[in-house]
Amino acid sequence: MTRSSLLTAALAATLLAPALAADPPAGTAAPRTTQEVLDASATSDWRTPDPADTLYLDLEAGRVVIELAPAFAPDHVENIRTLARGGFWNGTSVYRSHDNFVVQFGDADADDGTKAKPLGRAKTALPAEFERDARGLAFHALPDRDGWAPEVGFANGFPAARDGADGRAWMAHCYGALGAGRGNEADSSNGAELYVVTGQSPRQLDRNMSVVGRVIRGMELLSALPRGPGPLGVYDDPARRTPIRAITLAADVPEAGRERIEVLRTDTDTFDAYVESRRNRRDTFYKRPAGHVDLCNIAIPERTPQDGRG
Amino acid sequence: MTRSSLLTAALAATLLAPALAADPPAGTAAPRTTQEVLDASATSDWRTPDPADTLYLDLEAGRVVIELAPAFAPDHVENIRTLARGGFWNGTSVYRSHDNFVVQFGDADADDGTKAKPLGRAKTALPAEFERDARGLAFHALPDRDGWAPEVGFANGFPAARDGADGRAWMAHCYGALGAGRGNEADSSNGAELYVVTGQSPRQLDRNMSVVGRVIRGMELLSALPRGPGPLGVYDDPARRTPIRAITLAADVPEAGRERIEVLRTDTDTFDAYVESRRNRRDTFYKRPAGHVDLCNIAIPERTPQDGRG
Repeated sequence: MTRSSLLTAALAATLLAPALAADPPAGTAAPRTTQEVLDASATSDWRTPDPADTLYLDLEAGRVVIELAPAFAPDHVENIRTLARGGFWNGTSVYRSHDNFVVQFGDADADDGTKAKPLGRAKTALPAEFERDARGLAFHALPDRDGWAPEVGFANGFPAARDGADGRAWMAHCYGALGAGRGNEADSSNGAELYVVTGQSPRQLDRNMSVVGRVIRGMELLSALPRGPGPLGVYDDPARRTPIRAITLAADVPEAGRERIEVLRTDTDTFDAYVESRRNRRDTFYKRPAGHVDLCNIAIPERTPQDGRG
Repeated sequence: MTRSSLLTAALAATLLAPALAADPPAGTAAPRTTQEVLDASATSDWRTPDPADTLYLDLEAGRVVIELAPAFAPDHVENIRTLARGGFWNGTSVYRSHDNFVVQFGDADADDGTKAKPLGRAKTALPAEFERDARGLAFHALPDRDGWAPEVGFANGFPAARDGADGRAWMAHCYGALGAGRGNEADSSNGAELYVVTGQSPRQLDRNMSVVGRVIRGMELLSALPRGPGPLGVYDDPARRTPIRAITLAADVPEAGRERIEVLRTDTDTFDAYVESRRNRRDTFYKRPAGHVDLCNIAIPERTPQDGRG
């Protein structure tokens, strides 16, 4: 027996789209692998995030690209744009890396009135934007049940949840979610101190924090940062913090200098087929397809467009 | 307004056990914070893992402690003991770090018949141990529903799931789960190439892989390893792999040299109270307790016993 590449084979199989496990029932579309779905996607299945909603977080190791969510957190997003334009984060740091939870960044001295960096033209306080009216929000529901919320799915390209009983909707704390740190008071955030989920989705934070966006590229630059000491993962030693060169709004960068990035739309038949390919893995590695997927197990594909410009 | 430590406050609040948000209904026990539950725990609420089921994975950066699960994967565990006793992993490496998924370690040349390290006295092939008969297994169920399995909870201290319809039980791929890599065939694992879950719980692997144990201390030494290049996270460049000094069975270490570690039992009233404290966060930071927790959001506490020996 040749020993194969073990778990690696699982992913190779998924990515290389081998034979299907079984023929589909007559009259139904053939189940497809994830790679088959993506290979068959049309240009219209992809979208380019608005540069006015796109942040570049530049570390020494590279660039993290973030998409902001003004439909969920308009006041926070506006303040974040103002902070970025004022250069607030340039020279600040990632000062916390809490294993299986979050990284947090901004002004490590924000709590010290004598050292805190001024916010410039940005507001010093914002209302809580934990959730919003579900009306007027196009919500693309998942077929599977969720333990944390009555209904989950995607809205404006972001993982989200909805409660039909009270008519509210909110963004979910999945891997890569960007949230606004706050104190004990609900309205004590200003968008200057931000966190990104790097561990098992802490959905208990849903409806308790203002989620303001999502990392769409470069998560590995945040998720692999050495964990800080102690239970909260905060680096008390400034030398261990990760410097932030700059956070820039893409709209403030000349077009030729912007990242070229497309994200799979979440409101299309292609996306539904993609989700189905994650619910039931259709390659020879999986012996028992799950018939289920959790909201936060659905990574939203992104790509660099191949249009001859690159 | 003094700006507080933002999200940090959430955890400080959780850990420092502030006032409850509200009085409990008459006739019910007062809800407690996680810290209050742990502070009130009895010696009998904690267990010491069997040294015959405990592995020390030594990296240059420190030690990872693993508990093996012979009740779920007896053949794999026996082979892993044999491999450890034979020094199989000494001088091997962590050769894969796949963002939001797994790290994998063992012999990076396992797939190359001309370079593969011999397994010594260990078996070269094992049966699949994806699941077992649920009878005879003490299963401590969680109150909350799960999307992936009919029932979830803990068995022998490990996150697990059960299906009453077919009478089967299996270990769940939660953060820290240790599994045996394999090829496309279900019975192609031998326990030499192992993976540890470092990302959002990939429960789609449940009942598809032999889960053989769980990391009980030192996850941050694995989870923060730089991600490998490419979609599978494998380091093709040997210089980027993380060397493994040794993997040793604790039973083979003189008692005085063993790690002193206790794990919270999962079959006690204290554990139920701990779970409840995670289902509904009872501190002033949380404005809306979730009333739910997912199996893989329940970190099992461990501690160094304070018995005067230390």
